[in-house]
Amino acid sequence: MENSCTNAFPLTMNSSQKQETVCIFGTGDFGRSLGLKMLQCGYAVVFGSRNPQMSSLLPSGAEVLSYSEAAQKSDIIFVAIHRDHYNFFIDLTEVLKGKILVDVSNNLKINQYPESNAEHLAQLVPGAHVVKAFNTVSAWALQSGALDASRQVFVCGNDTKAKHRVMDIVLTLGLTPLDQGSLLAAKEIENYPLQLFPMWRFPFCLSAALCIFFFFYCVIRDIIYPYVSKKQDNTFRLAISIPNRVFPITALVLLALVYLPGVIAAILQLYRGTKYHRFPGWLDHWMLCRKQLGLVALGFAFLHVIYTLLIPIRYYVRWRIRNTTATQVISRKDDPFSTSSAWLYDSYMSLGVLGFFLFLLLGITSLPSVSNMVNWREFRFVQSKLGFLTLILCTAHTVAYGGKKFLGPSALRWYLPSAYILALIIPCTVLVIKLILVMPCIDNALTRIRQGWERNSKYSKSLSFGKSNVSSNVECTWASEI
Amino acid sequence: MENSCTNAFPLTMNSSQKQETVCIFGTGDFGRSLGLKMLQCGYAVVFGSRNPQMSSLLPSGAEVLSYSEAAQKSDIIFVAIHRDHYNFFIDLTEVLKGKILVDVSNNLKINQYPESNAEHLAQLVPGAHVVKAFNTVSAWALQSGALDASRQVFVCGNDTKAKHRVMDIVLTLGLTPLDQGSLLAAKEIENYPLQLFPMWRFPFCLSAALCIFFFFYCVIRDIIYPYVSKKQDNTFRLAISIPNRVFPITALVLLALVYLPGVIAAILQLYRGTKYHRFPGWLDHWMLCRKQLGLVALGFAFLHVIYTLLIPIRYYVRWRIRNTTATQVISRKDDPFSTSSAWLYDSYMSLGVLGFFLFLLLGITSLPSVSNMVNWREFRFVQSKLGFLTLILCTAHTVAYGGKKFLGPSALRWYLPSAYILALIIPCTVLVIKLILVMPCIDNALTRIRQGWERNSKYSKSLSFGKSNVSSNVECTWASEI
Amino acid sequence: MENSCTNAFPLTMNSSQKQETVCIFGTGDFGRSLGLKMLQCGYAVVFGSRNPQMSSLLPSGAEVLSYSEAAQKSDIIFVAIHRDHYNFFIDLTEVLKGKILVDVSNNLKINQYPESNAEHLAQLVPGAHVVKAFNTVSAWALQSGALDASRQVFVCGNDTKAKHRVMDIVLTLGLTPLDQGSLLAAKEIENYPLQLFPMWRFPFCLSAALCIFFFFYCVIRDIIYPYVSKKQDNTFRLAISIPNRVFPITALVLLALVYLPGVIAAILQLYRGTKYHRFPGWLDHWMLCRKQLGLVALGFAFLHVIYTLLIPIRYYVRWRIRNTTATQVISRKDDPFSTSSAWLYDSYMSLGVLGFFLFLLLGITSLPSVSNMVNWREFRFVQSKLGFLTLILCTAHTVAYGGKKFLGPSALRWYLPSAYILALIIPCTVLVIKLILVMPCIDNALTRIRQGWERNSKYSKSLSFGKSNVSSNVECTWASEI
Repeated sequence: MENSCTNAFPLTMNSSQKQETVCIFGTGDFGRSLGLKMLQCGYAVVFGSRNPQMSSLLPSGAEVLSYSEAAQKSDIIFVAIHRDHYNFFIDLTEVLKGKILVDVSNNLKINQYPESNAEHLAQLVPGAHVVKAFNTVSAWALQSGALDASRQVFVCGNDTKAKHRVMDIVLTLGLTPLDQGSLLAAKEIENYPLQLFPMWRFPFCLSAALCIFFFFYCVIRDIIYPYVSKKQDNTFRLAISIPNRVFPITALVLLALVYLPGVIAAILQLYRGTKYHRFPGWLDHWMLCRKQLGLVALGFAFLHVIYTLLIPIRYYVRWRIRNTTATQVISRKDDPFSTSSAWLYDSYMSLGVLGFFLFLLLGITSLPSVSNMVNWREFRFVQSKLGFLTLILCTAHTVAYGGKKFLGPSALRWYLPSAYILALIIPCTVLVIKLILVMPCIDNALTRIRQGWERNSKYSKSLSFGKSNVSSNVECTWASEI
Repeated sequence: MENSCTNAFPLTMNSSQKQETVCIFGTGDFGRSLGLKMLQCGYAVVFGSRNPQMSSLLPSGAEVLSYSEAAQKSDIIFVAIHRDHYNFFIDLTEVLKGKILVDVSNNLKINQYPESNAEHLAQLVPGAHVVKAFNTVSAWALQSGALDASRQVFVCGNDTKAKHRVMDIVLTLGLTPLDQGSLLAAKEIENYPLQLFPMWRFPFCLSAALCIFFFFYCVIRDIIYPYVSKKQDNTFRLAISIPNRVFPITALVLLALVYLPGVIAAILQLYRGTKYHRFPGWLDHWMLCRKQLGLVALGFAFLHVIYTLLIPIRYYVRWRIRNTTATQVISRKDDPFSTSSAWLYDSYMSLGVLGFFLFLLLGITSLPSVSNMVNWREFRFVQSKLGFLTLILCTAHTVAYGGKKFLGPSALRWYLPSAYILALIIPCTVLVIKLILVMPCIDNALTRIRQGWERNSKYSKSLSFGKSNVSSNVECTWASEI
Repeated sequence: MENSCTNAFPLTMNSSQKQETVCIFGTGDFGRSLGLKMLQCGYAVVFGSRNPQMSSLLPSGAEVLSYSEAAQKSDIIFVAIHRDHYNFFIDLTEVLKGKILVDVSNNLKINQYPESNAEHLAQLVPGAHVVKAFNTVSAWALQSGALDASRQVFVCGNDTKAKHRVMDIVLTLGLTPLDQGSLLAAKEIENYPLQLFPMWRFPFCLSAALCIFFFFYCVIRDIIYPYVSKKQDNTFRLAISIPNRVFPITALVLLALVYLPGVIAAILQLYRGTKYHRFPGWLDHWMLCRKQLGLVALGFAFLHVIYTLLIPIRYYVRWRIRNTTATQVISRKDDPFSTSSAWLYDSYMSLGVLGFFLFLLLGITSLPSVSNMVNWREFRFVQSKLGFLTLILCTAHTVAYGGKKFLGPSALRWYLPSAYILALIIPCTVLVIKLILVMPCIDNALTRIRQGWERNSKYSKSLSFGKSNVSSNVECTWASEI
């Protein structure tokens, strides 16, 4: 039941009402699929083709005519033709005057042409209302009804009426139209299906860089150093031990980097004394990909949890426990129970578990359908309050991991401290600054700035007081959004 | 591509069509952001301001006029002004006659004023059509396009035409309008963005109460009792052992409480002999937050799983295993394999794993996007059939945990039974009653009642037979919804 | 705030505008709930009943009249009556001429009647415009506002205007209308709420068959064989050991079966030399339920992970480790560390963890709300590229599990090889064929075919060149969708 219209055959419709006729230029895969779908949804379909006699494989029930004949049959024409072949439109300018042309074409590369296909078409046929739509839908998905990926159809065009006409058709086909404004948005719409996770690129590169750095750092400390100093062959640690050191470190650093831009933004606002200055571009971009950064961090945290839980069934660990026990028995050494060690180990694990649990909650509320159900206040509560609690727990988990040996001299190998100590720098910095920012005196100043108050400009102060009085409370729910 | 309209600059539109003009009262953050967004989506925007000359930071392309001048330019006016400053509207009643006023304001507290801002506005300007909308959208989200939280715009108003006009604008901005009825809904809409998880409050308080009770119960049995009777220092158990006893107990009790109201409702219906009596308020409320109860229970179950899987890498556990082995070797005691113990332990764990797996499935089908894909029959199958199977598995897991020592005299400390025995009371009760309810004779009676049949009233019986015959089968798919 | 209209009482509306009146036939549960909801959303409601005087429990504010009187009050009538009682409509044909009849009825069984209820109604009242809608919404959900399951209302009908009228009402009630085409779709819409996971049936049956086969296979090898040959009682393995062997095998085979149809389709296309032949029906069906197959496989993989992580706290495992250590100590045997074993074990686990992690990612992107956010290129990247990487990692994990003992003579019991060796057959086959298919020469041929090129038919080649030139690039983004 996911696909609409599929089982309805309009030819047998026992309604006296006249069907709406649509025209499709181009008898390629997409044109045919679109035609079939429209036939199933109750439209009459006329195909326009260069060689109407030779067109095959068309859905039964559809007519095939030459371009100009087909165009006369309907006031809405879907252009399922490659941009390189648009030049025949020049001959049709008369026929197409006042009609709606729906450009469904895609390109092969991002920004392949200086102007978008739809704008190009609008220049060729100035009398027609060009609307860009349907390019994000796949022919196969239209045909099979398996719309697993997006049901969304981005629509843009300069003529509002034409646009609404197309959006109605989108709705009738069981898809979701999204108005994207004027035809200038066509370029972006044409680039959209060619993009590959643009928002994820920065988080991925950053986490890859962090992983590689900490991987080699750990290799030097844990594999090369023992080999050089004690001739130990620790290479088997490459499979689990080293990743299980690199992943949690990367996760913690990324999580801290999620909350660093908010802290920087607050400092900037405090320093400037106003919120009416734009943040620098890098900060804006950073703030927009915080969600992706957080989800990548969650991935690493998840891997860390699984690797940690696997520890007791590793061959090396079992061998070592066996030998420790054997040595203890043979040497008849006593092994007294240390309550402080039990405390330290247990609380270290408990902090990690609770941190991971909150982290998972953050991840779940990032799911589009869940975040759609909550209001902004709830979303901010989860992402900000719970987020900082997660950061605190994970940082405490890492500190407790170090435990007693923290910064002891034995922790240095070739003057390199343990990797987890490096990992603590950014989280601790973020937490310390945040702690300062939530102190009442500074928090009040920040809140006032975010409500529209300005410190430095005397003129705008007196002025904006009038304004901000008027509107401040409208916004104050969203005031501390950053 | 999540945000619509962002790259479209309407000023360069090469369309001959006239743009629609909207007016925005108030040049604060929200007014400006809304204006910018509307400009990007192809509207002409006129700001109304107290001091038109002094307004700054407005988006380029927008005009600024005095309130009355601006109001004359458009028949739709967005009121982005704080309620305290609404009194100037009294002077504008003439100008605003027949126009649409869209109240976008929010308050600082829930139920801050006796009547909603929108109703207050409607009283001030009786000739205008007041529509409440956009108050749940944030200025920052409009501006940055990062609509992570709700895209939903709740709309209400007494004039259907005006409401539809506003809903069209909402759609054009790429948001989702939701009609909430007449202007009486404005109060609820204004309270909405100030709420903080209202449906989750009861589940949270309940689970917190359960946690605290069982925590102290376990502290008395597992820490204070050993300390008093054997001078053992077991405080380190506070970090993992006690939570890992409290969390599964809370999870099991909460899960049972999810299914208890349905069972109570069935008994009530059987007792009353009709389904046409309202349930008491507490039962209604309880039934509406079952989903939240279940998800909180799932959270506790998840923590229990992680804590359990961490057991073998705990310091205390490793120390005990080492010492047990050492003692065994030194005393040369034989350690025969007990098949029955292996069976008991393994089946206890297996039941827990399967229960947790089904519990996770229940949680996943609670995700809004997943539950939107299934029909009611499927949803009820998962939530009811799988839910009870989960409860059975988890109860069996707890019973098997007790195993042989169940209710043995050694289980009592200071006459207190093990905590898990207390935890079993509610689940077992629910399961026993459910077992009685699904017996054919009772199940048939219940089904008949839920199809509209009434036992007690002779009159309504003969009457409703006519009716219920007519309509019963329409409903019977949903009959046993509870 | 999930439910719209609930707190709005239209009777107190201070608007001068006239309310729209709707008529509801039938005063059963669904009729009453629908009426209440419509009253709350601002409609005037008139009920039509057989015994208007005797109808009780109706929402206050609604009028009750006889069928023919009620029908005259409104031009839109909701028919909440069981199909068996439709015959009274024959007397109303005059009154209902030109009116909209909305059939909301459901049946008890799939395909209970030769034609759908809505079509039956259309035959009885030929002059009316019959629209099928609202049958997937439950009375209880309408009343309580707890629309946890579908908000979607499937609408179909032959008259477009009538259909749009009904879709407007659906929107006003806060639900999502989905146009399903002409009235011929009514049968499918009526069957929809009676379905129970139709797409999941094949994956479930397949995985059940695989589970049962491998379960008995493992029972023979691991329980019956040791019992017969060594009189060992291994029955306790039924609880965890055997499931933890059966589940990963089933998961791996199912995962391979997700990617097998795509490979078969590619071979078929290469063999036929064209993409313009339909695939056989079984292949089409198989390809449409790949997502479900994959999710079932993920469920088994999840169970495998949890069972594996539980290993070290099993009674049997602890007993064995204790005894091994004791034996080692007592016999004073040396236990040298084997770096190659450590490598093998660790990399075997690491492969499994990474495979499971990618598998989870695949599962998360299958969530409807997530897959709605990505474009086709991203969806295909995740499902195809990451999917094959998952298959490679999981297959490598299984191969590494075998390790040194792979196909050694000791692995055979009663000439039966280990179960995991059987499990490797399909995944390895799929991977080998895929490896051949991605070789440049074959990949190029396949790409050309998928762009519309045809090998065999000389005529259609010259012909389709014209066409495919025109349209190929429109599609090529989706070319290799399979």
